[in-house]
Amino acid sequence: MYDIGKSKRAEKAFALDDVAIVPSKRTRDIDDVDLTWKIDAVTLDFPLVAAPMDSVMSPQTVIRMGQLGGLGVLNCEGLWTRYEDPTPVFTALAAIEDPLAATKKLQEVYAEPIKHELVTSRLEQIRAAGVPFAGSVSPKNARDLAEVIVKSGVDFLVIRGTTVSAEHVSTSTTPLDLKQFIHTLDAPVLVGGCANYHTALHLMRAGAAGVLVGFGGGARRATRNVLGIEVPMATAISDVAAARRDYLDESGGRYVGVIADGSLAGSGDIAKALACGADAAMVGVPLARAIEAPGQGYHWGPEAWHPTLSRGLRAHFEPSGTLEEILVGPSSVADGSMNLVEALRRTLASTGYTDVKSFQRAELVIV
Amino acid sequence: MYDIGKSKRAEKAFALDDVAIVPSKRTRDIDDVDLTWKIDAVTLDFPLVAAPMDSVMSPQTVIRMGQLGGLGVLNCEGLWTRYEDPTPVFTALAAIEDPLAATKKLQEVYAEPIKHELVTSRLEQIRAAGVPFAGSVSPKNARDLAEVIVKSGVDFLVIRGTTVSAEHVSTSTTPLDLKQFIHTLDAPVLVGGCANYHTALHLMRAGAAGVLVGFGGGARRATRNVLGIEVPMATAISDVAAARRDYLDESGGRYVGVIADGSLAGSGDIAKALACGADAAMVGVPLARAIEAPGQGYHWGPEAWHPTLSRGLRAHFEPSGTLEEILVGPSSVADGSMNLVEALRRTLASTGYTDVKSFQRAELVIV
Amino acid sequence: MYDIGKSKRAEKAFALDDVAIVPSKRTRDIDDVDLTWKIDAVTLDFPLVAAPMDSVMSPQTVIRMGQLGGLGVLNCEGLWTRYEDPTPVFTALAAIEDPLAATKKLQEVYAEPIKHELVTSRLEQIRAAGVPFAGSVSPKNARDLAEVIVKSGVDFLVIRGTTVSAEHVSTSTTPLDLKQFIHTLDAPVLVGGCANYHTALHLMRAGAAGVLVGFGGGARRATRNVLGIEVPMATAISDVAAARRDYLDESGGRYVGVIADGSLAGSGDIAKALACGADAAMVGVPLARAIEAPGQGYHWGPEAWHPTLSRGLRAHFEPSGTLEEILVGPSSVADGSMNLVEALRRTLASTGYTDVKSFQRAELVIV
Amino acid sequence: MYDIGKSKRAEKAFALDDVAIVPSKRTRDIDDVDLTWKIDAVTLDFPLVAAPMDSVMSPQTVIRMGQLGGLGVLNCEGLWTRYEDPTPVFTALAAIEDPLAATKKLQEVYAEPIKHELVTSRLEQIRAAGVPFAGSVSPKNARDLAEVIVKSGVDFLVIRGTTVSAEHVSTSTTPLDLKQFIHTLDAPVLVGGCANYHTALHLMRAGAAGVLVGFGGGARRATRNVLGIEVPMATAISDVAAARRDYLDESGGRYVGVIADGSLAGSGDIAKALACGADAAMVGVPLARAIEAPGQGYHWGPEAWHPTLSRGLRAHFEPSGTLEEILVGPSSVADGSMNLVEALRRTLASTGYTDVKSFQRAELVIV
Repeated sequence: MYDIGKSKRAEKAFALDDVAIVPSKRTRDIDDVDLTWKIDAVTLDFPLVAAPMDSVMSPQTVIRMGQLGGLGVLNCEGLWTRYEDPTPVFTALAAIEDPLAATKKLQEVYAEPIKHELVTSRLEQIRAAGVPFAGSVSPKNARDLAEVIVKSGVDFLVIRGTTVSAEHVSTSTTPLDLKQFIHTLDAPVLVGGCANYHTALHLMRAGAAGVLVGFGGGARRATRNVLGIEVPMATAISDVAAARRDYLDESGGRYVGVIADGSLAGSGDIAKALACGADAAMVGVPLARAIEAPGQGYHWGPEAWHPTLSRGLRAHFEPSGTLEEILVGPSSVADGSMNLVEALRRTLASTGYTDVKSFQRAELVIV
Repeated sequence: MYDIGKSKRAEKAFALDDVAIVPSKRTRDIDDVDLTWKIDAVTLDFPLVAAPMDSVMSPQTVIRMGQLGGLGVLNCEGLWTRYEDPTPVFTALAAIEDPLAATKKLQEVYAEPIKHELVTSRLEQIRAAGVPFAGSVSPKNARDLAEVIVKSGVDFLVIRGTTVSAEHVSTSTTPLDLKQFIHTLDAPVLVGGCANYHTALHLMRAGAAGVLVGFGGGARRATRNVLGIEVPMATAISDVAAARRDYLDESGGRYVGVIADGSLAGSGDIAKALACGADAAMVGVPLARAIEAPGQGYHWGPEAWHPTLSRGLRAHFEPSGTLEEILVGPSSVADGSMNLVEALRRTLASTGYTDVKSFQRAELVIV
Repeated sequence: MYDIGKSKRAEKAFALDDVAIVPSKRTRDIDDVDLTWKIDAVTLDFPLVAAPMDSVMSPQTVIRMGQLGGLGVLNCEGLWTRYEDPTPVFTALAAIEDPLAATKKLQEVYAEPIKHELVTSRLEQIRAAGVPFAGSVSPKNARDLAEVIVKSGVDFLVIRGTTVSAEHVSTSTTPLDLKQFIHTLDAPVLVGGCANYHTALHLMRAGAAGVLVGFGGGARRATRNVLGIEVPMATAISDVAAARRDYLDESGGRYVGVIADGSLAGSGDIAKALACGADAAMVGVPLARAIEAPGQGYHWGPEAWHPTLSRGLRAHFEPSGTLEEILVGPSSVADGSMNLVEALRRTLASTGYTDVKSFQRAELVIV
Repeated sequence: MYDIGKSKRAEKAFALDDVAIVPSKRTRDIDDVDLTWKIDAVTLDFPLVAAPMDSVMSPQTVIRMGQLGGLGVLNCEGLWTRYEDPTPVFTALAAIEDPLAATKKLQEVYAEPIKHELVTSRLEQIRAAGVPFAGSVSPKNARDLAEVIVKSGVDFLVIRGTTVSAEHVSTSTTPLDLKQFIHTLDAPVLVGGCANYHTALHLMRAGAAGVLVGFGGGARRATRNVLGIEVPMATAISDVAAARRDYLDESGGRYVGVIADGSLAGSGDIAKALACGADAAMVGVPLARAIEAPGQGYHWGPEAWHPTLSRGLRAHFEPSGTLEEILVGPSSVADGSMNLVEALRRTLASTGYTDVKSFQRAELVIV
């Protein structure tokens, strides 16, 4: 604890940039590394979940993500469930270069209502491909859309937003009783973002199969500038991993997945997130650079099109390779944005670990 | 305490950039947040005071500030009280692009004397609009102008400068006895800048209704480069909040407003200032970007036109929206410079607080 | 130890940039400084070893390095041992400006197999010059190439790679028993990169004449971005120097050379590495700027041409002087990239030391 | 103390950029501030000494410095004492734009020998003006030139270089016995650079009237890059001030001036140096920007023209005002480079001090 001044104290919190993984005295063969991730009834080849963002996930890329061995998630409040044919909308957005003009256009196109029948038809299209997949909803629409999503056969329902907490207080509406709500659903739930021990413990007790660690409410820099809120991820992941450990004991053995969500620029950040205690990572930016990404070189989150308080500018990325190259290579770039899976394998091998669970004990240093 | 060397020790002090607000286990409905700020007999819709700078506050923008729910303050030592018609002066200044040439022009135009009758007429013009408002004076002109200002019907007299301290020592003049001076005035006084516990306590004991926290003597970087003086705001606010708490006890219940003044680039900084213990914020830069701002895209403080030792360059900002958009939205930018009020509401809601007083307990981390 | 969060702790580690050498109360004549480095049967004029990288070391520059008083090392898995005449390959690479295109070309040209007869003929060409020299191999090719290299008459065999650890575990192959392997070789072995006390101690016990400190697996920034792994060099060198001290005691007097390898941009970094406890430094970047360097203004390591996961872009440097000027001057630049040897002499003289061994006790500060 | 690793510890040291002066509870009238500096028999209006660099000090600017109230120092090993008419040399240097080409030209023109008769004539020219002044020599030429300089009637002899230490050890020459040497001279001696308690104490015991704190061997960044040596000035000044205090006691009352020398970019840095414990500051960069400066917009130190190991590039500055404006104003810039004296006055007044001696107790914070 540090004294900020005579009336306020604060702890030091660490971002992923503040830490680094260090080699140990042991190394492994890269072929001996097993990245398999089991969560609920699903087993994935590697612990990567795509962020449910319109610029990243279309029905096609959700399917492709599953075919390659990860988990794709369709944003059920996005353009695919607002427009019968969203292609012209994407094209119109990609034609706007200026970020401020893009924000206004985003605010405009997302004013179109969500259609339940589109939610159903998009998800059924994905289900037909026979790969694991998920659909996402924000907390405020959870009551309205969750059942529609679950009935479409998703493997997971993702509830993702900024208002997820252990205790939401409202004077005007009855807050969602998350425990009861999850209990009534026929699909396991991944829920977040959360950023501290108590909220994570509450979500685990409410029955979540996995918790998303992070502050799902906007790009990191924008959130800091607009709200003053910042969630240093290394500390947040470590705190939530402590909740997982304590809940495992208290529940007599229920292991809840901890999924780092946000501030993950590439494979180096993902590796650090796992070393801090995460079981898996939800990634957006790296996948937004895929040639198949619906954003066509642009990337935005739901906070960018908030009607009255945008908290993120649309970003531009030059497409760098196929989704396959980004996930499983080969890579000819050296910035951690491609061949994420081999990079993780190599980090584990170089530091002497064969699976993610044991790698969570890897030694970190403050740099 | 750190050893700088064998003969000097120093404490670590924190700027607002060094800290961040973290989510708690609770969240709130944004509509349940109440930003109302009561100070003395005045109740404002939100805790924002405009900085009395010529580039920000004209009689018109003081009125507009009040209409929108905040507090406008006219600089009673500025161009509006030196010139019958300051418009040509503003126009001439806006025609100079080079900052150094602008400094020389500023030094020239501010050489014109202040006229008491203009102080009176400008303030009466504002009073006629029927909104809360204030007039400001520097400590060295306080004796001369305070009575004129107060008689014009201001809600507050603002005494703002760099020489405000608990104890001013002079061999040539009798320093202002602040306690006696405040006692004689018919309006509550907001006074600063101050930056430490003891000075703040002294100002409270002298009868201030509010104290301005900061070093009102120039832009942050310029003050550091020219004087070597820097006031890390998170620490300063926390120290002054401690003085408020102790004075509340010692006075048997007189609550003095703590107003963060300086280094506030946008809503994120304002939120952090409140979380450090401030009751309100005095803002300049965000308002200088208003289309209505008299500076016409330029911004300067009194230190910029000091006749022999300029301590701040005139800055340029592209106007980004109306004063209304900047204060209460809607916003299409993501840098914290627009829709300040909704941003504050959202920060409080996201961290589980319903008013500023309780939000002063929000958890901070060192980042 | 710092708490990253409730389930993870980490120590602070220091890079060379984090530390500085400070003057002591004593100074020396620069002519009294003796930089001689004795390792095994070889005595060098100064403690600098060239990094075995194709962009730095050709047979000719290995010879020149030796003539000037240092130790040159030929990469026995590089272009010189894959191509009868590598000149057209170097020319073709230098003709490509784009770093990404260069990576693809590197991946292509290094697909050519290594030829044992070229290893022999290149090393015999160097041996004929009568200067100390070494040949390098990566751990995975050590069994295949070591004997060929040693038979060619090298003074040292360098085993350099990322998979060097105290304990390599494999389910598919029998890992190299380093102790037995070194025992069978007719040349002393320099081996690394290693980055911690236990691995260094293991390598010393295995019979290494010198250990390379660092993470030989890629450029610093790229390794951090791709793998999340980072080896702060000041801490790593200090830890390995502790292993040298403890092994000296345990072995009853066998002194193993500690060679800093990586992140050494110029003479200032080299001086800091020695002050942290290194006996010598392996340098790449400064030598890549030599007019004679085969890279012709470009520089790359083995990690840049990894077939599926590049971990370093080819870098461009304007050639700045001859190898002689870079090593022993004179210098007209002020960035630490030229006249490395006089710079080291001057650092020792300015801080009161006459040889590297005593300079390892020099006072450092954290900056 | 921090553990860098298992075999090395280091203390944290602070640069002037790491600290800031904070307001206290007291303020003063700026007119009550007395900056007078008495050292030996000389009283200056303000505690500023010009650095003896050819780009800053000509006989004319030495005189002007004295007329304005400070202390000018002629470099007695510079162009003025090597050339009967140095003007064409300055002109030729100013005609070269490229810094690397300039270094080579500097190495060439400084190869011309120093002439004793020019030392005498330049200094006598200055003496005739009737202002306090000094001449400087490097330690290695002290025996040769000191008597010539002193005989010319200087108020101080400045011995300035990198090899000044408490104990210089040489196997080939008999080191200068500083105590005996100073004893034989007819002028008080200012000597440095030194950077630690013990060296400073030794210099004081040797009879120095003032010690220069810093590492006089090159520009800060270049010294770090080339030699790995860095002297964080806040810590160095505080350590030397402790030596002054202890020597004052041990000598029964001899007060030796502590003069910060180096890394002082403007008035803010000078103010911090005084607050760390310095009695005065030796400045180069701010004065190099004077219209009268002989460097004609360029600035270099003796380390830049070292014949074999340059440790500083010639820098370019746009002339910004007369020497008078730079020292005593008025100023229209806000970067601390002009009106240094009023800035110091204002810093003392703003923090409640009336003289430098008491200001050495000013409160600092780590920022």
